[in-house]
Amino acid sequence: MSGIDRDRSRQLSVEDIDDLAAGAAFLGTGGGGDPYLGQLLARNAVLEYGMPALIEPEDLADDATVFTSAMLGAPTVLVEKAASGDDIDLSINRLAEVVGRRPDAIAPIEVGGINSTIPIVAAARLGLPLVNCDGMGRAFPEIQMVTYNVYGVPATPAVIVDEHLESVVVETGSCKRAEELVRAAAIVMGLSVMISCYPLTGRQVKDYGVADTLRIALGIGRALREGRRDGDPVDAMMRFLRTTRYYRHCYPLFDGKITDLRRETARGYTLGFCDLEALDGSGSRMQVEFQNENLVARRDGRTVAIVPDLISIVDRETGAAITTENLHYGQRVKVIGTSAAPVMRTDAALAVFGPGAFGIEEPFIPLENLATGEQA
Amino acid sequence: MSGIDRDRSRQLSVEDIDDLAAGAAFLGTGGGGDPYLGQLLARNAVLEYGMPALIEPEDLADDATVFTSAMLGAPTVLVEKAASGDDIDLSINRLAEVVGRRPDAIAPIEVGGINSTIPIVAAARLGLPLVNCDGMGRAFPEIQMVTYNVYGVPATPAVIVDEHLESVVVETGSCKRAEELVRAAAIVMGLSVMISCYPLTGRQVKDYGVADTLRIALGIGRALREGRRDGDPVDAMMRFLRTTRYYRHCYPLFDGKITDLRRETARGYTLGFCDLEALDGSGSRMQVEFQNENLVARRDGRTVAIVPDLISIVDRETGAAITTENLHYGQRVKVIGTSAAPVMRTDAALAVFGPGAFGIEEPFIPLENLATGEQA
Repeated sequence: MSGIDRDRSRQLSVEDIDDLAAGAAFLGTGGGGDPYLGQLLARNAVLEYGMPALIEPEDLADDATVFTSAMLGAPTVLVEKAASGDDIDLSINRLAEVVGRRPDAIAPIEVGGINSTIPIVAAARLGLPLVNCDGMGRAFPEIQMVTYNVYGVPATPAVIVDEHLESVVVETGSCKRAEELVRAAAIVMGLSVMISCYPLTGRQVKDYGVADTLRIALGIGRALREGRRDGDPVDAMMRFLRTTRYYRHCYPLFDGKITDLRRETARGYTLGFCDLEALDGSGSRMQVEFQNENLVARRDGRTVAIVPDLISIVDRETGAAITTENLHYGQRVKVIGTSAAPVMRTDAALAVFGPGAFGIEEPFIPLENLATGEQA
Repeated sequence: MSGIDRDRSRQLSVEDIDDLAAGAAFLGTGGGGDPYLGQLLARNAVLEYGMPALIEPEDLADDATVFTSAMLGAPTVLVEKAASGDDIDLSINRLAEVVGRRPDAIAPIEVGGINSTIPIVAAARLGLPLVNCDGMGRAFPEIQMVTYNVYGVPATPAVIVDEHLESVVVETGSCKRAEELVRAAAIVMGLSVMISCYPLTGRQVKDYGVADTLRIALGIGRALREGRRDGDPVDAMMRFLRTTRYYRHCYPLFDGKITDLRRETARGYTLGFCDLEALDGSGSRMQVEFQNENLVARRDGRTVAIVPDLISIVDRETGAAITTENLHYGQRVKVIGTSAAPVMRTDAALAVFGPGAFGIEEPFIPLENLATGEQA
């Protein structure tokens, strides 16, 4: 393998996969698809092909080639289909043909649900290492919403492949246009496709990626698992998050049950909102809006967390993250707000995935300021 | 140049381009875009790059590689945009990369309006010969509606390119699916794109193509031009058509003026119908339905011509074909019905582009039988 410092790489264990999927589901803020499906796919892949090494961005040579691998579609549909593996291979092999280089490593484009474990499947099948780094430190619904785009890396060539091994290759100078073209094709293909896009150099991964997010997801999952044994998984997870480099502002925003839910698959996304009522009898209410991922949380009409900060809905007993398509009327949940990585909160970043990018006519205010009432 | 018998090839003249465009507009049965735009593009290309040789299918070696080149979209939009040439080159060069072979020749996929002259542009720019053969002997709105598909040749890899040189490559085993994926991308790209699809072998062109259609289009245009000098261009054109190998059943279906017109750009096509009233005072009426191309003509409620037979609306004085997007209220026109090539009327062909393929719940009856009242 060229371009990689192998000495620093570490193996993942099978237990790590489960923890990583559970933690990534939290960071996925409702999106990224069912983590359980992702776990099964990754477990099967590593049993058959062996566990990929987990490497750090700094282990990559500047001219190393890194491909992303993900599922794209509406989470409501993603849960109905699984990747066969051949589709993952084809997406990466076609991308290699188009760019004229084989990948040296695979990186997740986002950390969230199934898209944290699909790269494990891809790396295992192709015998490549997996990079401990993604393009947002959370999940987002649209292709252009990644740090790589913020700093000028093109999203294309992008290859999408469906379960019939039909493929579409998109090349455009605009990441937003890439999203439109990929989404249009994905709708025809049934809204659940494999994608490999943002072919990256090692230098770009080091400069623009959100580092360490797979290890943080792993830590979140471990904290949840250990917290369940000790009695308060949500608290254990939040204590862990506060020790991380990005997620140290972390607040319980609401403790309640879901009293209303509007969810539709439209424009190629899972769109809607859920209403919650406090369990403490105070009559306090919360509404969470989503487009695949949770976008804004309003408590009694006042915004308490807004994209790109992370809004996660978790089971109030087990702490397990609940993805958008798994929300149900009557669920008893906690809503957790977590600060996004600083690189996600710059003006350049907010122009790409701040509230305005989702049609929300509110400024971004960091949740630690919203919590203290300070309008930073 | 490999795979081509050059001795048999003949040069086109610039006057030929005008005749070919005029004749192809007739065979385009309302579709294929404005022939005048196509004429200008072809004239400019041959001035800059020289006139391509016109070769016959039998001049191709069996293993020669032939690419098609066309514009795809809604005719209402095609007239607003012209090909830059770079988009044509890119569509063909990308297709060559994907299939791993350079083309030995260019062939039209359809004979109709701009898509008879775009291949001249492509052949001129690339220094390749042009094959006197197409995939339908008329124009059709959807990619799968060609003889090549009827006989099992895949439509993909297909490459589409827009005016910003964005490209999309589609690969699928189904020509209908190729249409769906290409159409979805073309809608995002603004409904006017360059396409190169159906990469063919010389053998496939010889076995499944509709031969001689560029020369026939040329003859139609010449008959119209000479007929204008002699006084009755429509009659001159019909006399010529009756001498050709495919179009020998040719009838004036109506002589009237357009009294109503419904036309919309929807689902990626120009859809609608026009109503006509006879000029002879008889009160007779005709309705012509179209999806880019004219699909069915009903005189006083009775079907007199139906797809895949050709229904052309021409100016009643000049005989110039009027494309769907150029129909206007009050135009005085003749409607001409012409038999499709026999290869287009087989059961296998009718399953792909007979009335049912357009949602018309009527059987195909050859227009020569409709004319005599015989229900063949």
